[in-house]
Amino acid sequence: MTTPNKQVLLASRPQGRVTEDNFRIVEAPIGRPAAGEVLVRNEWLSLDPYMRGRMSEAKSYVPPVQLGEVMVGQTVGEVIESQDARFKPGDKVLTPLGWQLYGVARGKELTPIDVNRAPASYYLGVLGMPGLTAWLGLSEIGQPKPGETVVVSAASGAVGSVVGQLAKIAGCRAVGIAGGKAKCEYVVRELGFDACIDYRAGKLLPELRQACPKGVDVDFENVGGEILDTLLSIMNPFSRIVLCGLIADYDVSEPHGYKKLRSVLVNRIRMQGMIVFDWKHRYGEALQALAGHLAAGKLKYRESVVHGLDNAPRGLIALLKGEHFGKQLVKLD
Amino acid sequence: MTTPNKQVLLASRPQGRVTEDNFRIVEAPIGRPAAGEVLVRNEWLSLDPYMRGRMSEAKSYVPPVQLGEVMVGQTVGEVIESQDARFKPGDKVLTPLGWQLYGVARGKELTPIDVNRAPASYYLGVLGMPGLTAWLGLSEIGQPKPGETVVVSAASGAVGSVVGQLAKIAGCRAVGIAGGKAKCEYVVRELGFDACIDYRAGKLLPELRQACPKGVDVDFENVGGEILDTLLSIMNPFSRIVLCGLIADYDVSEPHGYKKLRSVLVNRIRMQGMIVFDWKHRYGEALQALAGHLAAGKLKYRESVVHGLDNAPRGLIALLKGEHFGKQLVKLD
Repeated sequence: MTTPNKQVLLASRPQGRVTEDNFRIVEAPIGRPAAGEVLVRNEWLSLDPYMRGRMSEAKSYVPPVQLGEVMVGQTVGEVIESQDARFKPGDKVLTPLGWQLYGVARGKELTPIDVNRAPASYYLGVLGMPGLTAWLGLSEIGQPKPGETVVVSAASGAVGSVVGQLAKIAGCRAVGIAGGKAKCEYVVRELGFDACIDYRAGKLLPELRQACPKGVDVDFENVGGEILDTLLSIMNPFSRIVLCGLIADYDVSEPHGYKKLRSVLVNRIRMQGMIVFDWKHRYGEALQALAGHLAAGKLKYRESVVHGLDNAPRGLIALLKGEHFGKQLVKLD
Repeated sequence: MTTPNKQVLLASRPQGRVTEDNFRIVEAPIGRPAAGEVLVRNEWLSLDPYMRGRMSEAKSYVPPVQLGEVMVGQTVGEVIESQDARFKPGDKVLTPLGWQLYGVARGKELTPIDVNRAPASYYLGVLGMPGLTAWLGLSEIGQPKPGETVVVSAASGAVGSVVGQLAKIAGCRAVGIAGGKAKCEYVVRELGFDACIDYRAGKLLPELRQACPKGVDVDFENVGGEILDTLLSIMNPFSRIVLCGLIADYDVSEPHGYKKLRSVLVNRIRMQGMIVFDWKHRYGEALQALAGHLAAGKLKYRESVVHGLDNAPRGLIALLKGEHFGKQLVKLD
């Protein structure tokens, strides 16, 4: 193979907002698989908000990326060479290989994907971690009942767009929160939410009250900060908050001070943090449900693609600023 | 009856801390029971932190006390005259009659109490709302498992003292947080907690780390504010927070800004607000368990008594400042 490998390394930890200086792009040799290992050429790299967390030193549910290491991330790619009997060249697989063109993984780290069921990139989105997050978080913690109102922030994103559509399928009123008029129009017109509020318009509370005349029963929270604090004012008794992301806090040095926690007490709210990896034993069930809705045309899905590994840092920065639409991907070849 | 009735009314809403000016003591006629009603002479009045909430206009789970109304509260007393076949003069009953010497209640608002099982005042404490709150909050939301660490704030109070002892009975490490050295000594030496931290000493985080070497699995939160924010730093993955009281926020005009909410996400914490009234259908089960522990000598219990209705405002103010020990009561006759 003459094409060299290329990698994006974490060069420095962001102070506040992520900048391109936090990354370093290097050439590297293409590894060779040892026994039990597989060499994969990555085709798609997923960009996700959790990556911001891994760039920081702060304690999280998994260790941070170390300086000089390849940035973490899921990819889908093609098997080039295999020393694991379960895989052969040409197979399409889901990998944890991160921000690089080629990588060597242990066979047991790879998941085969069926490109006849859905395009390869879907396994990074609606049929991947974001879709699983939406399905499992909503059913396990949100527990929406028909007639209830479900609010989801980052509603046009990879997770939020699925949450709202699943809420509609469950017979709920689905209300999105997104940044900007274009996203809100997309969320209502294309995804079929009942309403979507542009938080940048600065009238979040009155618009939420109007969009949720019966209060809020489930908040699927991807953003946090002022949005969560505002929602706490209109949560119903016995409502649920799925705490899935706090992207508003990722890019600031000083975390938001939440003023409305008393609502959790007064309204007997159940607020629960979630990480999709805790539910690996239920991925099969969730995937089957998601694939079924997709096949039935009940799950609309959109991708936002940047081209080339060199543009991955810019893609993540755009994602963290909320400039993307739907699932953010990097096309690698 | 020649003794006139006496009542404590809400005279004004507190701005920040409660003061004696917020109350007005008046004489009033003693009512006569109509059909289905019962006249009760109150013997004990319970003082509880929730009363602070009812003095404010802010939305809560029940309407606030109106200006000029008798302050809300539970009492135990003796039936003087009854127009309800279920009660006869001399019966001891638990009532919602509030801050007054005599009152008329509908029979269905009264609960008979068995003074052979425990002293009458216990039905306002360990066998009353505080005990039920401790038992139901801990078992329903806290769900402590043997070997886990349970932290409870306001540990020497009516609820906290029971929570910690129930945690010990459940095979857990029980760590209290209380204000002042005397309370901490009481919590450890008399109540049998494994440790108790004096938050007023200003070293809450390092002392909590030392007292909870395996982190915190259950926080039974009665106080909130800095205490809850600090606890969020050392909660374990999959831990539970029973949000029972936010007394730190009651007496200040500007609520605390909670900075550590990210811990709920990262550690997949379940935080849930509770009001004991939601579990009325389980009171019987809880009471039986509490009475059993009490009879077995496993539940130590202490009362802090002020004498005379005139002193009830001072008693509540002391309670809100944390100057009491154990269950705060007013002896009325």
